[in-house]
Amino acid sequence: MNILIVYAHPESQSLNGSLKDFAVSHLQAAGHNVQVSDLYAMQWKAALDAGDNTAPAPGPFKPSQDSQRAYKNGTQSPDIAAEQEKLQWADTVIFQFPLWWFSMPAIMKGWVERVYAYGFAYGVGEHSDKHWGDRYGEGNMAGKRAMLMVTTGGWEPHYSARGINGPIDDLLFPINHGILHYPGFTVLPPLVFYRTDRTDETRYAHMRHELAERLNTLDSTSPVPFRQQNGGDYDIPALTLKADITPERKGFAAHLK
Amino acid sequence: MNILIVYAHPESQSLNGSLKDFAVSHLQAAGHNVQVSDLYAMQWKAALDAGDNTAPAPGPFKPSQDSQRAYKNGTQSPDIAAEQEKLQWADTVIFQFPLWWFSMPAIMKGWVERVYAYGFAYGVGEHSDKHWGDRYGEGNMAGKRAMLMVTTGGWEPHYSARGINGPIDDLLFPINHGILHYPGFTVLPPLVFYRTDRTDETRYAHMRHELAERLNTLDSTSPVPFRQQNGGDYDIPALTLKADITPERKGFAAHLK
Repeated sequence: MNILIVYAHPESQSLNGSLKDFAVSHLQAAGHNVQVSDLYAMQWKAALDAGDNTAPAPGPFKPSQDSQRAYKNGTQSPDIAAEQEKLQWADTVIFQFPLWWFSMPAIMKGWVERVYAYGFAYGVGEHSDKHWGDRYGEGNMAGKRAMLMVTTGGWEPHYSARGINGPIDDLLFPINHGILHYPGFTVLPPLVFYRTDRTDETRYAHMRHELAERLNTLDSTSPVPFRQQNGGDYDIPALTLKADITPERKGFAAHLK
Repeated sequence: MNILIVYAHPESQSLNGSLKDFAVSHLQAAGHNVQVSDLYAMQWKAALDAGDNTAPAPGPFKPSQDSQRAYKNGTQSPDIAAEQEKLQWADTVIFQFPLWWFSMPAIMKGWVERVYAYGFAYGVGEHSDKHWGDRYGEGNMAGKRAMLMVTTGGWEPHYSARGINGPIDDLLFPINHGILHYPGFTVLPPLVFYRTDRTDETRYAHMRHELAERLNTLDSTSPVPFRQQNGGDYDIPALTLKADITPERKGFAAHLK
């Protein structure tokens, strides 16, 4: 398989850095091709702006329209086009990051905002009152798998069903559903390491073991069963679940089959 | 009142830019003092890194420890210290942004990561197995109000209880609860404008009216009733809701009184 790791941590000599290096070695030893987008090392530009199009239109900058134009005309900033090529090359994409303020680091959010161009990751397919684009299960990433690999200093119970931070699956829903499922990725359950502030050798060995297991089963792990937007479960264009689909369910969990 | 608007949009001639300008004028006309942190105009550095401490420690960069040291020793990057001063000055803070990929733009996430120093926004107060810091309702922002002001191209039903994007209050929970309630802000219900891709004059007049209403009532609007971590509802250190507190509730909504 071709595997892309999109990785965000400012220090290579960190737990995240070690886990990333281990993942690369482990995947390569298993015969996979691996590329890493090490966003801090690449000094990735986080802020989406008019400079992302090398041939900007005159007049006020309109993020979506300008992204569409640049993608269509081949005038995207080269760093954006290079990341899109990696995504097209990849069979599986791993997003690895420390959970900062309950989401991905800014530098990775900026990777999403800039690489996810109009026509590439959104604004794909017919867009009408009958078909609201190829998204949420369809799109250019269809057939590829994606998985989050997350570290957090907090304890597992803090992220449990009644934990104060909120359940980890709900905190990660805007990413798993809104960023991965949206352009068509098949989303694997996240790999989350808790209480990582102080990690001794025994614990680190255990983490490596757990990570290896997940890497060994990337192509066989059952994905998160998100519903397909155009699979018949939603009214269009309201894009609400049809009345007869699990009528008692509300919120994020309603979008799981 | 002293009101800080933290604002992220790359184009001043945009709907967001117009709403921001209107908010400033309206608040000043009502006698308030207003400061704006216009993150794009300031070319705010989004990525947290070792350069955020002007006197970095030797050895590998440890984000939390380094932030703690820089905050305590007064060696933070001047752009960070300036934003912290604005927060201390403010009675109310408005965070204004377009919803990009179901969260705040990267440049604003990077504002949170860098300005929310250890000792300033987290790592505050006694930290033991009996008291897990002054957070979630306590902390240095206690007594200040905060409100999100968000625009999105999506339709309101897409963000409803059974809408495909997920309910807007759940999508914003990691921000309202995890970024605003955490350091002690009193959190006001967000002001969300939907379907903003094409806004005609009539609609814009309606939006201005709605915004004015919210600005006129910043000090009287009932806040979101998030529970206090140290208010008796949580077991510590597990930080899960006590068994007798709304035992039937799980997920984000359980943290509302």
